[in-house]
Amino acid sequence: MALSEFELIKRYFYQSARAFGVNMGIGDDCALLSAPENKLLAVSMDTLVGGIHFPRNADPELIAERALRVNLSDLAAMAAEPLWFTLGLTLPSVDERWLEGFAKGLFTVADEFNIALVGGDTTRGPLSITIQVHGAVEAEHALMRSNARVGDVVYVTGNLGDAAAALAVIRQELTVGKSAFSYFMSHYYRPLPHIKDAKLLRDISTCGIDVSDGLLADLGHICEESGVGAKVDIERVPVSTALNKVATAEQIADWALAGGDDYQLCFTVPQARLAKIEQLIANGKLHATAIGEIVKGSEVVCYIGGEVFEPKRRGYSHFDAAN
Amino acid sequence: MALSEFELIKRYFYQSARAFGVNMGIGDDCALLSAPENKLLAVSMDTLVGGIHFPRNADPELIAERALRVNLSDLAAMAAEPLWFTLGLTLPSVDERWLEGFAKGLFTVADEFNIALVGGDTTRGPLSITIQVHGAVEAEHALMRSNARVGDVVYVTGNLGDAAAALAVIRQELTVGKSAFSYFMSHYYRPLPHIKDAKLLRDISTCGIDVSDGLLADLGHICEESGVGAKVDIERVPVSTALNKVATAEQIADWALAGGDDYQLCFTVPQARLAKIEQLIANGKLHATAIGEIVKGSEVVCYIGGEVFEPKRRGYSHFDAAN
Repeated sequence: MALSEFELIKRYFYQSARAFGVNMGIGDDCALLSAPENKLLAVSMDTLVGGIHFPRNADPELIAERALRVNLSDLAAMAAEPLWFTLGLTLPSVDERWLEGFAKGLFTVADEFNIALVGGDTTRGPLSITIQVHGAVEAEHALMRSNARVGDVVYVTGNLGDAAAALAVIRQELTVGKSAFSYFMSHYYRPLPHIKDAKLLRDISTCGIDVSDGLLADLGHICEESGVGAKVDIERVPVSTALNKVATAEQIADWALAGGDDYQLCFTVPQARLAKIEQLIANGKLHATAIGEIVKGSEVVCYIGGEVFEPKRRGYSHFDAAN
Repeated sequence: MALSEFELIKRYFYQSARAFGVNMGIGDDCALLSAPENKLLAVSMDTLVGGIHFPRNADPELIAERALRVNLSDLAAMAAEPLWFTLGLTLPSVDERWLEGFAKGLFTVADEFNIALVGGDTTRGPLSITIQVHGAVEAEHALMRSNARVGDVVYVTGNLGDAAAALAVIRQELTVGKSAFSYFMSHYYRPLPHIKDAKLLRDISTCGIDVSDGLLADLGHICEESGVGAKVDIERVPVSTALNKVATAEQIADWALAGGDDYQLCFTVPQARLAKIEQLIANGKLHATAIGEIVKGSEVVCYIGGEVFEPKRRGYSHFDAAN
């Protein structure tokens, strides 16, 4: 009978959460939670659909890792500390091996980022994962899209374009060697939510976003919400050595500017706080690169060697884009 | 391009929420919320899949109503006041008429229960709706499944079995006249979350559940979590006049005891507080019926005219049960 199988799954995943503020986790009609005082609750929900956001036949451990990491990235983009998450898991059938792998991936990430599973729903249907993350942030430290000001410098953490290259590998549009394959797959399935980096920015920046739709699109969201424009110096956009080895300069630029799914943080720093951020970078505490500046206007304009450069595309690249 | 269509949907649904504690609704990486002080946050997530939890070709307005109402029922079952909800909406394609109906149903219920849409995700894939509701409740007033004690009287609000009859109509196993059809469809698609009733119980009961899996199954959850048994007098289980007209006594008993989806509240009242609840019922403030008693043991045992009665089934009846 379908019920008992799904009840089994619930018991598999929904161990009683012993974490901050969890008065009641699994086992009643609602989870009961104590939100931290004097902080705002930051919540974000993301749905990942099999065949759209990840290949249906992907390793379930990696699917779970990616699902939770992508959601945690939204907390990082708000500079919020992770507290709890809920899981809506829809499965075509109960496959214990699949579930075992999924649970392993999920709890590996949950433990790494100190976030507790407090509830959710398990149901039958086409493979789909909805996660809601809950975190806490002081109002004055939240990284809002609307806080960019003319003269701020635009930074980005880590490297861009690796996830788009991984997607090309998955789609068999790009062939790479064994170690590059591992590197790109890891960046696609195990993106790093920049929770720690966001914490370092608390007295430096109040404006940021995670790069999920592509740098130009996401910096565009900041510009739109802040009523400003931005200049990006293409030659300063950071890309990995691995990426530089496998593609042409034109392809790399496209992936780094318009490829999604890297989950780096893009943030702005007022001139008065540049010394602080540059010190963090110089000390090796933060891997971030200045790539441009906030200017008057409403567009993100790219430059290369001082000349305006019109990128091939500005959009978004989901798993479904080629389907 | 898929993006702009789905961006359009987001703008359609995600109007800036002006509600209690909403510092930032739609438009950033997370919603930023202020939880009420000295209360617990109650959260619950439910996924409804097209073809499993509702017919795919159902009226989108009714699908939305049902999805939000079912989630609100979990807040009622905790005696929590609704605050905010998030929506994960997965759609095979962008159909503006469908969306218009869905949004209408969703905001009708949101307005009725004073709950604000603060975020979510919209994506492409097989039709599925995940909603998370957030409410607030004082710790001492929460209706926990674990608070039933031997000697408590078991009550249920409203009538049971109407939703199961509706399901039989949807599956064309039961044919009814026009007005009965409207009545049953309304009970299936527009179940009442018993938020107001739960509020009335705040000084009367600390133990309750909403009847979503069927009376015997849900009362069984209370027994399991409280370490007790229960006696139910079948002849006192309330059913509607409409239901009495369309089916045999045996069929009605099955639907009322084992049919899911009624979303009535089942709650227990200590002997010392019986006068209070009976006064509410006598004054017409609460529609509820005493149907049995909490006893030692671990089972829910049914009685009819003082004799033990073994029901046909104790389980659950989802839309998928017949598929």
